[in-house]
Amino acid sequence: MAEFKYPEALEEVIEHLKRLPGIGRRTAERLALAMLKWDGEKIIAFGESLVKLPVVVTFCPECGALAENGEKCLICRDPARDTKLLCVVEDFSQIMSIEKSGFFKGVYHVLGGKLSPLEKRSAEDLNINSLPGRIEELAVREIILALSPDVEGQATAMYIARLLQDKKLEITRLAQGLPAGADISFADAATIAAAFSGRRNI
Amino acid sequence: MAEFKYPEALEEVIEHLKRLPGIGRRTAERLALAMLKWDGEKIIAFGESLVKLPVVVTFCPECGALAENGEKCLICRDPARDTKLLCVVEDFSQIMSIEKSGFFKGVYHVLGGKLSPLEKRSAEDLNINSLPGRIEELAVREIILALSPDVEGQATAMYIARLLQDKKLEITRLAQGLPAGADISFADAATIAAAFSGRRNI
Repeated sequence: MAEFKYPEALEEVIEHLKRLPGIGRRTAERLALAMLKWDGEKIIAFGESLVKLPVVVTFCPECGALAENGEKCLICRDPARDTKLLCVVEDFSQIMSIEKSGFFKGVYHVLGGKLSPLEKRSAEDLNINSLPGRIEELAVREIILALSPDVEGQATAMYIARLLQDKKLEITRLAQGLPAGADISFADAATIAAAFSGRRNI
Repeated sequence: MAEFKYPEALEEVIEHLKRLPGIGRRTAERLALAMLKWDGEKIIAFGESLVKLPVVVTFCPECGALAENGEKCLICRDPARDTKLLCVVEDFSQIMSIEKSGFFKGVYHVLGGKLSPLEKRSAEDLNINSLPGRIEELAVREIILALSPDVEGQATAMYIARLLQDKKLEITRLAQGLPAGADISFADAATIAAAFSGRRNI
């Protein structure tokens, strides 16, 4: 016999698992072997939930957030949301974090990434060009750029601010400063600088 | 709108991922969201590979190792393997490690676990009772107990040794000692004690 190998069907599952972020070959093997100890029915149920995932979970044609069966997302369909307040996020997964805070009651616009010359992502690759049209349609009063405070996030924010400079609306970005519960001794220099420059009266 | 939730189909995938060892709620969410960024076809291919996994990958009716389509495993089907040498392992996943060493040319017997009073696993729950019959059938000369050197592994080895004490065969267990390339200053006390008591002439 040549080199001992896993059955091909198992090898296939390992290859798929390896594509997940942070999962290397060894971890993928470990996970696949662990699954083999489940009831066969549970593995099949897992597989079926994946097969239907891209069919059922779609992206909202309005804002680009997660939605179902090609419909608008729950937020765009909610008449109680203030459409005059538009929050621009990089990624649909960030909407969950913002919604959990319960503070924002407007609607979203998902870019699907940040501008990045290094990764060759320009405005055409992102959901940016539909922004002026949406602003007109929703009669947006304030646009909040909720982009990460890193170089790409700042560049993307500047690009959008310039794109919309002729519109009659307020353009804001999220405050930078110390995170809640943070110990100042562990905060990095950029965070402390931002917290000082953004200081407010109490 | 009530609390913001992921689409149900995504929630389902997260629940399945959570069942994998070492994957908690947050990691499962992260992995599921990462998958949503794949091409839909790749998610479906992953799902299909899982659906067929328990049908295609089965366990060898002879030894309990991984096999395909209900057939005997590659090792049991290989006429070049020495059936007079039987290696008893706890789990099918350990066969891969032993095969990689290329040292062992006999056949295997997978117990499917170790005896454990704490986890209420007795000999009836393991593939132990078929062992005497297989030994007769294969005319085994030596049985190597390749069980982990922990309390449960030792108890299982002792149980098997006693079960087979009337048989005319050699019963051995893997040597304990320093792992290859190990630095003695980092070895634990039990390993050093085993390495001393098992010392050999050079």
